[in-house]
Amino acid sequence: MKIKMTVISAIALLLNCVSVQAGSEIETLINMLHENGIVSDEQYGRLVAELKQNQTQDSQEKAEVKKQLAEVTKPSDVEVSVNGGITVKTRDGKFSSKLGGRVQADAASYSGDPDMGDGTEIRRARLYLQGTMYYDWGYKLQYDFASTGANGKGIADAFITYNGFDDLQLKVGNFKEPFSLQEQTSSKYTLFTERSLPTAFAAGRHIGMMVSSKQKHWSLAGGLFGDSLTTKGGDDDEGWGAGARATFSPINEKGSIIHLGLGINYRDTGDNEIARFKQTPESHIAGINIVDTGTIFDVNDYLKLGLEVAAVYGPFSAQAEYITTSVNRSSGSDVDFDGWYIQSGYFFTGESRHYKKGAFGGITPKGIVGEGGIGAWEFGLRYSTLDLSDNDIDGGEVDSVTLGLNWYATPTLRFSANYIDVLEVKGGTYDNEEPSLFQVRSQWAF
Amino acid sequence: MKIKMTVISAIALLLNCVSVQAGSEIETLINMLHENGIVSDEQYGRLVAELKQNQTQDSQEKAEVKKQLAEVTKPSDVEVSVNGGITVKTRDGKFSSKLGGRVQADAASYSGDPDMGDGTEIRRARLYLQGTMYYDWGYKLQYDFASTGANGKGIADAFITYNGFDDLQLKVGNFKEPFSLQEQTSSKYTLFTERSLPTAFAAGRHIGMMVSSKQKHWSLAGGLFGDSLTTKGGDDDEGWGAGARATFSPINEKGSIIHLGLGINYRDTGDNEIARFKQTPESHIAGINIVDTGTIFDVNDYLKLGLEVAAVYGPFSAQAEYITTSVNRSSGSDVDFDGWYIQSGYFFTGESRHYKKGAFGGITPKGIVGEGGIGAWEFGLRYSTLDLSDNDIDGGEVDSVTLGLNWYATPTLRFSANYIDVLEVKGGTYDNEEPSLFQVRSQWAF
Amino acid sequence: MKIKMTVISAIALLLNCVSVQAGSEIETLINMLHENGIVSDEQYGRLVAELKQNQTQDSQEKAEVKKQLAEVTKPSDVEVSVNGGITVKTRDGKFSSKLGGRVQADAASYSGDPDMGDGTEIRRARLYLQGTMYYDWGYKLQYDFASTGANGKGIADAFITYNGFDDLQLKVGNFKEPFSLQEQTSSKYTLFTERSLPTAFAAGRHIGMMVSSKQKHWSLAGGLFGDSLTTKGGDDDEGWGAGARATFSPINEKGSIIHLGLGINYRDTGDNEIARFKQTPESHIAGINIVDTGTIFDVNDYLKLGLEVAAVYGPFSAQAEYITTSVNRSSGSDVDFDGWYIQSGYFFTGESRHYKKGAFGGITPKGIVGEGGIGAWEFGLRYSTLDLSDNDIDGGEVDSVTLGLNWYATPTLRFSANYIDVLEVKGGTYDNEEPSLFQVRSQWAF
Repeated sequence: MKIKMTVISAIALLLNCVSVQAGSEIETLINMLHENGIVSDEQYGRLVAELKQNQTQDSQEKAEVKKQLAEVTKPSDVEVSVNGGITVKTRDGKFSSKLGGRVQADAASYSGDPDMGDGTEIRRARLYLQGTMYYDWGYKLQYDFASTGANGKGIADAFITYNGFDDLQLKVGNFKEPFSLQEQTSSKYTLFTERSLPTAFAAGRHIGMMVSSKQKHWSLAGGLFGDSLTTKGGDDDEGWGAGARATFSPINEKGSIIHLGLGINYRDTGDNEIARFKQTPESHIAGINIVDTGTIFDVNDYLKLGLEVAAVYGPFSAQAEYITTSVNRSSGSDVDFDGWYIQSGYFFTGESRHYKKGAFGGITPKGIVGEGGIGAWEFGLRYSTLDLSDNDIDGGEVDSVTLGLNWYATPTLRFSANYIDVLEVKGGTYDNEEPSLFQVRSQWAF
Repeated sequence: MKIKMTVISAIALLLNCVSVQAGSEIETLINMLHENGIVSDEQYGRLVAELKQNQTQDSQEKAEVKKQLAEVTKPSDVEVSVNGGITVKTRDGKFSSKLGGRVQADAASYSGDPDMGDGTEIRRARLYLQGTMYYDWGYKLQYDFASTGANGKGIADAFITYNGFDDLQLKVGNFKEPFSLQEQTSSKYTLFTERSLPTAFAAGRHIGMMVSSKQKHWSLAGGLFGDSLTTKGGDDDEGWGAGARATFSPINEKGSIIHLGLGINYRDTGDNEIARFKQTPESHIAGINIVDTGTIFDVNDYLKLGLEVAAVYGPFSAQAEYITTSVNRSSGSDVDFDGWYIQSGYFFTGESRHYKKGAFGGITPKGIVGEGGIGAWEFGLRYSTLDLSDNDIDGGEVDSVTLGLNWYATPTLRFSANYIDVLEVKGGTYDNEEPSLFQVRSQWAF
Repeated sequence: MKIKMTVISAIALLLNCVSVQAGSEIETLINMLHENGIVSDEQYGRLVAELKQNQTQDSQEKAEVKKQLAEVTKPSDVEVSVNGGITVKTRDGKFSSKLGGRVQADAASYSGDPDMGDGTEIRRARLYLQGTMYYDWGYKLQYDFASTGANGKGIADAFITYNGFDDLQLKVGNFKEPFSLQEQTSSKYTLFTERSLPTAFAAGRHIGMMVSSKQKHWSLAGGLFGDSLTTKGGDDDEGWGAGARATFSPINEKGSIIHLGLGINYRDTGDNEIARFKQTPESHIAGINIVDTGTIFDVNDYLKLGLEVAAVYGPFSAQAEYITTSVNRSSGSDVDFDGWYIQSGYFFTGESRHYKKGAFGGITPKGIVGEGGIGAWEFGLRYSTLDLSDNDIDGGEVDSVTLGLNWYATPTLRFSANYIDVLEVKGGTYDNEEPSLFQVRSQWAF
């Protein structure tokens, strides 16, 4: 009996190894009945064999179910999202693609002199495809359908990035040169519908290559660039340029930001040796340049210097820049132009401007229209001035004040109204004129 | 014994509460054997304890499987579809995006006078991105690559909609003014390759805002609009306009539709004070305008009135419109132009034209080519006339008959052949000419 | 007892039919105990009933779990992938859509005479939407943002295909005529940044229709085409053409390919009766045509003939073409132009050029940068010559040698450097000039 029991225990142990599940109370009962002599040895053998077989089968079925469950509960390789545009990415970070865009529809009305044309326009209508390839590589193509023209005029971004180095990014293709805070901040996110007067000195987008490092408290970028896309020199050499920008943000927390920036930008005019600086009265529909140097000839090169300062404190934001441009001519003396602006915004609804890696980003309203909220409401005030007169160049000097109201109904929608009062024009074509303008914009962007 | 039984019943009950599954027959057996005295109290206690433990374990395992199953069978948040283009939407209706487009490739041949150029063209090549944001907001950007040009010329739709009000939609941006049934019906779905002669009076797309309500049996839309995208006034004010359209469909069932419509459209010419109405012989490749007012000067404004009637009865459809335009001049008397058409279609294959919210929609063939069907085959006949002569303006008067055959191989494909016979031209450049044309189109659209 | 046993066996059998799972050892035990007289008939009846009920319930639960598992483990209808661009397809092959594109950013520098303009450009910036509809139908729209212009100039591909016949494809719309190996090979995959000099004789893209059959060892294509998209004849008839190409690849294995091809291409100039052949020194930025017939008048039509031969042996590839063009004039004698090239490539890293259906395809590096590899490195050498002088036409004759280095960092990225040495120009505007050029390209494409 003892031996038998041992054997049976061994079998029971074996069965338990195979499966430790329901059924052991019947095993116990069978053993008991066998011990009590109710069940004969032969019957006992058959029972134990059946028991073993059933336990094995049961165990296999459960294992199969578990395996299948593990299979189907495994997250899929590809993740698709659609919070404006279409984004697809692999979960391992190897690939991603986003199709996005923006539309800005404007209307403007003018009063005072000079005559400007009331009207409407699609200011920007863009689509872009952007993504990641093989972990370390990025790509982007963005086109502006509102700005088409020969030689790829409407191409905004068209580049490759390499992000395989720690803290260092390489970029090659067509993209914005690193210069000026208001230029680095996307037109989707500027405080007013148009950037301030000194945007006349924007470095713009060119084909080139850039090295940059963007950290929480500072950023550094420098690159070498060719001429603008639309410049086709024929048998003339195109221009080229080089630029660098450094930013420092000793305080960079959500709702509490200090930003300092320094930019330098050099441009050689190539074989055509011309330059021109001009500016609308902070309205693109206007159809006139309120100040304009006209074409300056015999220009070897010019150098721009920019100083930036900005701060965010809760719903309050402030930003100022000074840019000076020295034009070096082969005949005639050099000429210097400059401009600056200071602007401030305040969210009645308590939001705070986002800041990331040396530029301002999008607004996320606390309450979204469509989900019971009223969106984010922001008031803005700006003073800006631009002087395009020096020596023999009488481009004129202008200063203006802008009042703005922005309503961010959702993170992807913005409605803006701007009132621009040109305080004074000195010199140039529109000497002593003082027009004022009213401009509205509706924008979707993602 | 009774107490013991009660206790055991209580335990059994408890066990059943935990789990009402397989195993209770062994419970019954154990109880029986205990009652019958085969199993001792001590053995019985061990058996019941084991039983309870196993049942609990079993129950937990099943609950776990059920939980995991519930997790994986839960529908995903995002739904992707691809029946032509790419559509992604969240199941809660919060976001959606569709990337779609259309291509129309045409070829045409002409006979008779005047000379017109045989040839081919891509009539339309469009991509669009359209969707929903935060439940209540819609957006669209549609571009026509076959119609590029400065100032955003190729931009078809570029707008935001707000749908948060019951039965009321707000729209702002660039889109079609609400006027004329054949204009409201997409070029994907028109009965013939080109709209009829009175499309010379189309109100077109402008930047503006519109309020509309579209119900099953009626629709109402009214808006205020600026000038066309490509108009850049310089220092001239652009034109502006206002328009409204009402439709009524007392019968609106699948295969049985009656439509009545009334449109009114006003346009101020702004500072340029010109207007021009012209029309090709219902073929875009033609390269000539068979009637043409030329530029009319000193135009303050003009007013268009349109009457629409349409019906669908099974495979048969009919549609007619009359449009008149009164041009108000500051010098010289006013001039009036008008035109009308009547057209009818018949599906040999039994399909019926779709109608929705005041416009006709796409065709779904009963049998799709690729799935064993022969597609939908439709025959069309049209008479249309246009009079652009009045007072001193001798634009000419024309009428023509069109025969058409459409083959909708799939809901996304259409092949069309049109024969257009210009019956007579009276006045204008092509007085007394009677050309005829043959035109084919292949189209994919979704 | 026997009858009882039979009944019980029958019940057991029935139970087993319902479910053959765990529980049968208890069934056996119950039977044994009943046989042994331990369990009374009445008790036995209750036990068997409970057993049956539990087994049924158990079986139902398992069936439910299996059903749910089958449901969730069923592959979804739609598959989304993102290895560059966004691809969505239904698993049954009914629908698919791919959004893809390419960007090529170039910079070039020149030395020697004639003067050419150093500079940069976006050579191509394309997006396309391509897919399948209802199994048998295909569609594509591809646009080049670097080549915009009126009348749909930037439209590359815009077509419908029908693939419902065995081994035969129909194509209608705008696409490349079937002529020349280097033309049929996408610009993404050419060995050098620009195709060789005889690309002056490219047949290009036109609106038309084509029948083709592409097999492993041969391909045949022929079609009828209209004029180029940008040709708007006004009241002149546009030109038209017809072309065919046959290829034969007696050896077509991975890494071992022989290709022979023959192309013929006819073009009628329509009413404008002009032709012009010209060529840059294998650099698009150059801004000059090193040879150029200028506009040839009184041209009725012209006929091109092309011979192709190519081979791949492991990392080594070679390719040569000869093309001759006979221009038939209504006044003056006919003129003949011709050109040829031979080029060879070698992968240091052991890859092999892909070949499919009469054209070369993309490169898949053995090691990908970003996954620990160094990409694929390829060296190329080319000699090409073009003669555009005959009779009274002095377009000039040119030959040049090109050295190239390609780095395919990933299957979607390519960086190329080309040195082009123009050996000699005979005749034409640049008689006796021998410029040399250095050109680099960065490219993403998928």
